[in-house]
Amino acid sequence: MAQKPSIPKGTRDFSPSEVVKRNYIFDVVKKHFQTFGFQPIETPSFENSQTLMGKYGDEGDRLIFKILNSGDYLSKVSDETYTQKNSTSLTSKISEKALRYDLTVPFARYVVMHQNEIDFPFKRYQIQPVWRADRPQKGRFREFFQCDADVVGSDSLLQEIELVQLYDAVFTDLKLTVTTIKLNNRKILAGIAEVIGAKERLIDFTVALDKLDKIGVDGITKEMLEKGISEEAIEKATPLFSLSGTNTEQLQVLAELLKDSDEGKKGVEELTFIIEAVEKLGLQSANLTIDVTLARGLNYYTGAIFEVGAPAGVKMGSIGGGGRYDDLTGIFGLKDVSGVGISFGLDRIYLVLEELNLFPEEIDKSLEVLCVNFGDKEAFAALQLVTNLRKNGIKADVYPSSVKMQKQMKYANKRNVPYVVIIGEQELTDGNFVVKNMEKGDQETYKLSNVSEFIAAL
Amino acid sequence: MAQKPSIPKGTRDFSPSEVVKRNYIFDVVKKHFQTFGFQPIETPSFENSQTLMGKYGDEGDRLIFKILNSGDYLSKVSDETYTQKNSTSLTSKISEKALRYDLTVPFARYVVMHQNEIDFPFKRYQIQPVWRADRPQKGRFREFFQCDADVVGSDSLLQEIELVQLYDAVFTDLKLTVTTIKLNNRKILAGIAEVIGAKERLIDFTVALDKLDKIGVDGITKEMLEKGISEEAIEKATPLFSLSGTNTEQLQVLAELLKDSDEGKKGVEELTFIIEAVEKLGLQSANLTIDVTLARGLNYYTGAIFEVGAPAGVKMGSIGGGGRYDDLTGIFGLKDVSGVGISFGLDRIYLVLEELNLFPEEIDKSLEVLCVNFGDKEAFAALQLVTNLRKNGIKADVYPSSVKMQKQMKYANKRNVPYVVIIGEQELTDGNFVVKNMEKGDQETYKLSNVSEFIAAL
Repeated sequence: MAQKPSIPKGTRDFSPSEVVKRNYIFDVVKKHFQTFGFQPIETPSFENSQTLMGKYGDEGDRLIFKILNSGDYLSKVSDETYTQKNSTSLTSKISEKALRYDLTVPFARYVVMHQNEIDFPFKRYQIQPVWRADRPQKGRFREFFQCDADVVGSDSLLQEIELVQLYDAVFTDLKLTVTTIKLNNRKILAGIAEVIGAKERLIDFTVALDKLDKIGVDGITKEMLEKGISEEAIEKATPLFSLSGTNTEQLQVLAELLKDSDEGKKGVEELTFIIEAVEKLGLQSANLTIDVTLARGLNYYTGAIFEVGAPAGVKMGSIGGGGRYDDLTGIFGLKDVSGVGISFGLDRIYLVLEELNLFPEEIDKSLEVLCVNFGDKEAFAALQLVTNLRKNGIKADVYPSSVKMQKQMKYANKRNVPYVVIIGEQELTDGNFVVKNMEKGDQETYKLSNVSEFIAAL
Repeated sequence: MAQKPSIPKGTRDFSPSEVVKRNYIFDVVKKHFQTFGFQPIETPSFENSQTLMGKYGDEGDRLIFKILNSGDYLSKVSDETYTQKNSTSLTSKISEKALRYDLTVPFARYVVMHQNEIDFPFKRYQIQPVWRADRPQKGRFREFFQCDADVVGSDSLLQEIELVQLYDAVFTDLKLTVTTIKLNNRKILAGIAEVIGAKERLIDFTVALDKLDKIGVDGITKEMLEKGISEEAIEKATPLFSLSGTNTEQLQVLAELLKDSDEGKKGVEELTFIIEAVEKLGLQSANLTIDVTLARGLNYYTGAIFEVGAPAGVKMGSIGGGGRYDDLTGIFGLKDVSGVGISFGLDRIYLVLEELNLFPEEIDKSLEVLCVNFGDKEAFAALQLVTNLRKNGIKADVYPSSVKMQKQMKYANKRNVPYVVIIGEQELTDGNFVVKNMEKGDQETYKLSNVSEFIAAL
């Protein structure tokens, strides 16, 4: 009996129109990755389980897709282990491989394995799918692409400056102008925690501070107190509550607040260096702003922290983010490899471009010329014409069978073809072909012996 | 303790140089897919197990990678099933998803699921990885890309003609000239079996016939007899033993041999139509030849069968193949969808291009300009220059730290950079930058205020 087909929840089929739009984004991103000197690598879809497990916390481990060993996988399981019927302890006996969960851990593994071939500093980009056994929901998938650019083996702040420029270049090219690139520094967050004496409450503090616009000073003070942050700490942090104005003004407030924290001062210094350089170099369309509440993956980053918000007016979370980390590869035995990287959120960028109608108009023109098929002899002449057009890089086709013209025209309309070519019996006798402009509705006659005239007109 | 990292056997990391070369092949193939009117789709990496299982025979089923269910997967297994400790019966209880094994079954599933959105005839291409738990060996991997183009919903032989042209266009563009496109037809094979009265021995017959060049008529006769093909059958098949000469001559021999088989005659007719059309249209560099021993996936194909051999002198199996099939989607409940398709063997094409040194020379130029870093002030001027170059689409970079010039030049050499820019203290004072041509060894001085002069010279 025939099966009614379906696909696993949280996965997607991509139609031609969707693939073309996704590739448009990838191509723009890749182009700028390359002009910025990044080089592509690719890693296998599955890694040895021990490469991945234990790198993303307990929750992450749970969300990693494990691959069942091949063949008679139970033959290697001792009866003692088997009789327990415990999923957790059985898994490591019957599964040795797992689908990659992100691109960062495979990249770290790659750098360590290939350290002798790599010319450091290594600027790599990687655009590949990752898999997570997350509960599927709107905008969250079990298979999705990540799109990362990282520089490892250099602790120069020039990299941070370049990554801000890279975001600006990509989003400007995608016509996603007026994005906001938020910038923070882990050392500033550490400095704030030090100064207010609430190190272990730092996340609660920044989460509350982030709500300043919404609930005001009274609101965040209340929340901080509820979270166990002392009145004294809140008092000391007061200058942060009125942090506003230009980046330079904010840097002054931060410098004053953090003057007694060595780490905090270093953070202000780094932030100042990046911001001044970017201001001198100029951005094409993005705004770079300090956001001291920005704390993405706090424990991971050690220096700069980036996040790009969707353009004003679009309801969407961040469309990119990243930061500097001091020890990417230590877990695989290679110490002192500092890195800094950013990522682009493909699915969200897609949705934003769709919402703002920013995909190029010509993106849906998958076929430029379609020849109507009037029978074997006519179709052969059409195929001769089409062969010539294709050699000139023009997307062209002959309708495969001589069905009713109406059906063929319907197909042309659905494929959004701008030019339909007619070679019927009469045209063949006269040595002509007629080109119908589907937008304007008018038509033009050319000689079959002079196709280049038509090509030039296209 | 640090782990010594490795990757699962049969999988590969791809270095920047390898990714760039692979993408070069993909890009050429895609370009021609598009000019021939094919549209891209993508399907999920894993499918529901029932979509894949039972489609590739017992051996295929065994080679499909199964994904372990998430969470406490054993809780759904009855004690009765569990206590048997049988890998085969347990698998279906603890695994519901599997990695795709090829692109054809997912495509069939796609066509059935999306039949109401698709405009038939549907010309689709798909370039995605597939996974097989095969024993890894030289040139055989557990993860590899397939690259397929199929037309479904049309039984016109125009498609076969176009697919021959498509092979020719792609391989000519890749400079893989003088490839041989072998063509056969399932109906001719069926006709031969019918005429010689050895239907159930057809594969043995073609396998032996294929050795004609190597072991001669006596050799293949001996082998056929050993395989249980009767003397009478061999006698009837004799005309095939001297099948040579032009396609036209071979078609004449086949027409005579198969004159009593309706199916065989139909096969000769189809082959003749395709070959005559291709000869009239002309190929750019490939040779199209009849090969009656060609029987790829015999049970699958119903009409034309294609295979492309590597160029003469390269020891390598086929670099492409395909054919027509009558019922792609029947297994998922959609009847009467005929299709024809071809595939390109990426890994083998890669090896052939490498062996014949056919990758474009400029492919390894991942960076066009590198600025030496002489310190903060100089590096900032360099970054201004680089910002300008990148806006003009030039791949440019500043070395991230002001280490010894020797080290920076070594990096430039390793990255194969053609132009190294020097902006030291003196250049900064003079408002100049010096461009060193790494191939010729000479250098040129430009004004920092007139970068466009340098851009024009590139």
